Amino acid sequence: MSALKPENWVIQFVTRARVGHMATSTKTGRPHAVPVCFAFDGQTLYTAIDNKPKRIVPEKLRRARNIMENPKVCVVVDLYDEDWKKLRYVILSGRAEILQKGRERRHAISLLRMKYPQYRKMNLHRRPVIRIVPRNIVVWKYQ
Amino acid sequence: MSALKPENWVIQFVTRARVGHMATSTKTGRPHAVPVCFAFDGQTLYTAIDNKPKRIVPEKLRRARNIMENPKVCVVVDLYDEDWKKLRYVILSGRAEILQKGRERRHAISLLRMKYPQYRKMNLHRRPVIRIVPRNIVVWKYQ
Repeated sequence: MSALKPENWVIQFVTRARVGHMATSTKTGRPHAVPVCFAFDGQTLYTAIDNKPKRIVPEKLRRARNIMENPKVCVVVDLYDEDWKKLRYVILSGRAEILQKGRERRHAISLLRMKYPQYRKMNLHRRPVIRIVPRNIVVWKYQ
Repeated sequence: MSALKPENWVIQFVTRARVGHMATSTKTGRPHAVPVCFAFDGQTLYTAIDNKPKRIVPEKLRRARNIMENPKVCVVVDLYDEDWKKLRYVILSGRAEILQKGRERRHAISLLRMKYPQYRKMNLHRRPVIRIVPRNIVVWKYQ
């Protein structure tokens, strides 16, 4: 993503956001959107498939099933405010991969635990991580 | 959507949310996610393609281009809180259509203006509205 050279505020905005929204899709264009906690190291986004309780089991891994079938993903990070002059969003489109193990997965878990104290108490051992490498960034500000 | 019979809190949660996130996709599965202001009348969601300034012109109508090519959409409405026990989301999947004119478009504009005072000052004459009819609802709560 270094070639994309987003402005500094974009990097900061994405890095600091507490939640993003990830769209995945089947190969045949059935989209799925889900809120995600994520870490961004300036080049790559990581989001864990964590062990928060899921009531709706069949839906649980829709994001993972879609990515395995079709790695194209899109993550939007935005600010909503009732003063619409403050509205802004950053859309990162790229490719995702599921990391089941290895050094990069552990690096991602470390980043997630640095950003989210909530993850420090959770057992993320063997939990897969989704790596997202943005290839395109679109930035929008109301003004 | 009446056949889906979501719980009352789901209807209220979606109706009251100030922002949602809509995923669309090309036919070949390239997803796109964008934050949307929307109105929900209990059966149908409406979101305007409004005249907020857009800096990135080529991206401006990606959502509309995708819907014209492929009506499958997904809208997620969620609550983020640092107390993850409060996390919840509702995912509505269905089909979208762009309303260019007519009574339903005017009904949608009225709903949007009731919900968002910001729209009351904006000229939405001739602005298209996206109608989303959910066919499936997935509800998730942390606990």
